[in-house]
Amino acid sequence: MTRIWSTDLASHAGQPVQLAGWLHRFRQLSQISFLILRDGKGLAQVVIDDPEQVAELAQLPSETVLRVSGTAVPVAAAPGGIEVQGSTIEVVSVPAEGPPFDLFRPVIKAQLPTILDHAAVALRHPRQRALHRLAAASAAGYRAALQARGFVEIFTPKLVASATEGGANVFPVDYFGRRAYLAQSPQFYKQIMVGVYERVFEIGPVFRAEPHDTPRHLNEYVSLDFEMGFIEDHTTVMAMLTDVIRGMLQTLDEDGREALAILNLSLPEVPTEIPVIHFAEAQRRIAAALGEDVEGEPDLAPAHERWLGDWARQTHGTEFLFVVGYPMAKRPFYTHPQPDCLTYSNSFDLLFRGLELATGGQRLHRYQDYLAALGGRGLSREPFLGYLDAFEHGMPPHGGCAIGLERWVARLVGAANVRETTLFPRDINRLTP
Amino acid sequence: MTRIWSTDLASHAGQPVQLAGWLHRFRQLSQISFLILRDGKGLAQVVIDDPEQVAELAQLPSETVLRVSGTAVPVAAAPGGIEVQGSTIEVVSVPAEGPPFDLFRPVIKAQLPTILDHAAVALRHPRQRALHRLAAASAAGYRAALQARGFVEIFTPKLVASATEGGANVFPVDYFGRRAYLAQSPQFYKQIMVGVYERVFEIGPVFRAEPHDTPRHLNEYVSLDFEMGFIEDHTTVMAMLTDVIRGMLQTLDEDGREALAILNLSLPEVPTEIPVIHFAEAQRRIAAALGEDVEGEPDLAPAHERWLGDWARQTHGTEFLFVVGYPMAKRPFYTHPQPDCLTYSNSFDLLFRGLELATGGQRLHRYQDYLAALGGRGLSREPFLGYLDAFEHGMPPHGGCAIGLERWVARLVGAANVRETTLFPRDINRLTP
Repeated sequence: MTRIWSTDLASHAGQPVQLAGWLHRFRQLSQISFLILRDGKGLAQVVIDDPEQVAELAQLPSETVLRVSGTAVPVAAAPGGIEVQGSTIEVVSVPAEGPPFDLFRPVIKAQLPTILDHAAVALRHPRQRALHRLAAASAAGYRAALQARGFVEIFTPKLVASATEGGANVFPVDYFGRRAYLAQSPQFYKQIMVGVYERVFEIGPVFRAEPHDTPRHLNEYVSLDFEMGFIEDHTTVMAMLTDVIRGMLQTLDEDGREALAILNLSLPEVPTEIPVIHFAEAQRRIAAALGEDVEGEPDLAPAHERWLGDWARQTHGTEFLFVVGYPMAKRPFYTHPQPDCLTYSNSFDLLFRGLELATGGQRLHRYQDYLAALGGRGLSREPFLGYLDAFEHGMPPHGGCAIGLERWVARLVGAANVRETTLFPRDINRLTP
Repeated sequence: MTRIWSTDLASHAGQPVQLAGWLHRFRQLSQISFLILRDGKGLAQVVIDDPEQVAELAQLPSETVLRVSGTAVPVAAAPGGIEVQGSTIEVVSVPAEGPPFDLFRPVIKAQLPTILDHAAVALRHPRQRALHRLAAASAAGYRAALQARGFVEIFTPKLVASATEGGANVFPVDYFGRRAYLAQSPQFYKQIMVGVYERVFEIGPVFRAEPHDTPRHLNEYVSLDFEMGFIEDHTTVMAMLTDVIRGMLQTLDEDGREALAILNLSLPEVPTEIPVIHFAEAQRRIAAALGEDVEGEPDLAPAHERWLGDWARQTHGTEFLFVVGYPMAKRPFYTHPQPDCLTYSNSFDLLFRGLELATGGQRLHRYQDYLAALGGRGLSREPFLGYLDAFEHGMPPHGGCAIGLERWVARLVGAANVRETTLFPRDINRLTP
């Protein structure tokens, strides 16, 4: 007999079935007992009424690996309307110890550091499992939306010879006695690849040596990047990003349905057009509303992003808001200025529920503009030669953006800490498991 | 007018069209001239007969970025049976210099190091572009085959606290003053995740600090990994891998069709069952055929893999061959021994055209077996605690394997050097571009 998934039980009603999985819970009642078996996809209720079997199961620690053969019987009172009866049970593997916390409770009763220390066990909890299913579905939706629009997937190196964006927040690597760095983003490579395929995307790790220990920062995360050529300006990228996010939510609605049900979540709606506010206008409104003097500030503080999130909800009835035109001073050297006011840029942040979700914009595309931008920041040309090669040999107007996968899921599910939506988070204090 | 791709020209016969792309070649003949425009997907022939336009185009360097508006006209003699006539041409961006080699020739006339140094330009060559389209299609096929079989995509950390497999070939990273390493594989994490979803896969970078400069080795490459629970033994993994490779070839046949045509390639056939030979039997045959004394050797030399590749083709009529049962001595500590002869293992290599393409096998799953395996190799338990956590708390028999993406494509297209099928290769001498 072929083993089936717990989630396929209902379609085998009345038939003999074989299941396999982990002893999630054993509930011993006076007349009858219930074995809750957890497999890779869900839970199954197995009725145990043979006293010998009850005695045997009562001795097994939670997380014992089992094979169960029995009959799938529709029972209105059972979870999902189906249970397994008349079973024989085979013990496949007995744990050395019971789990460090109960996996059958609605949430794990432990502090976050303990949960993260025991990720190998904690991730088996149905809620944790559902969170990371949403990450997988989001990545799949991102990919599908871009592939449908002619984007080609690329894989670019994470070991680089110099700090990507000139900043200090890079991890140094000992590369055969030479110094290399971990890529902070695939930025240079995805721009180069616009010269090849025009439209490219990458889903891969990026590394930021930011010495912050906050609920929003990770030192390694998964970046969803795309870049496209022959754009009008940054608004072409914003329109594409809007389509892509709509595609991600559609895939979540399909492939993430079971996970969303476990988490009791509904998905946000993307408006036909996400409202747009210019950075200068945002500052004026923040100053007027909060009475803070933000004039001349080159960026928005987290509290200001939250205020803008509330404002967008109240004024436009949406949880999404584009802020455009961030000052050139805070943006990287490849940023395209705003043609009618050169202190601002053709860049954007997408705020979702009052937090930056994606950053992007139009890039410079003329070789001379790159030389001027590097010179203006006192940067030497030498570390950028392989990148400048693309612009020296003809590049169209182009732009792109990046979304942090773990942060996206955290916002979606309302997690207070991005570590909750990261399989094995890396921060200034954590390198294990 | 909306701009269309060159590959969509034929479906716009008789209509006005707008194209955009790069000046791939300008061929000035006595009566008529041809502009070959390259966009992200293909090439288009644009007929130029206006002497002023001819003079203007003749002055532009190759790789100038252009927009072309004209009429799509079916012409039997034109490439693809269609060309653009009566065009107006707008110069979007002029390169600072002509390219370092001609992109319009059938192959780039330069040595590999020059080609790699100028990747930003070389990758624009239709052949190079096609090679990497095959990589994208292979990754997509791998993913699709596994998702269809219930595998969940995971993203695991590349920064780790200790060398994954106990070996010396790891890159050290300065992690906020502490020492971290770059992951050699997602091995530990994918095994942990078998306890969560049973079936998982990851497509991501891995890092090997092997100080070899050979045509087969990269120090960073893309690894296609999967791992699955509740297996019988390594043969369950081999059957899954066979299905997955069949799926990859199917996607290549669909999404890679244009690239395959450019490269003039046909795809290999996967037999219903890939033939299997045991390591000991392979050694006996090699000894008999080549007259070499290989008894006691713990691995196969490249020349021996080539011989086996020839043998499989001659004996079984296929380019694929599984070698199983590699000696435990050369396999990592988590390898499951062969139950009826403990010096051999439940592991396999898949040879394709006489080169190792994938490595995999059954892993240990009992906690006590891990403690014994670590102890037997004189390894301390401490660096592995987060990994051992999974086995301490119940794991089923499981196994998996990994394919190197760049090597797979290199074998498929018959590239002599794996650097040819890597966008931006990293080796002991190369960290740029």
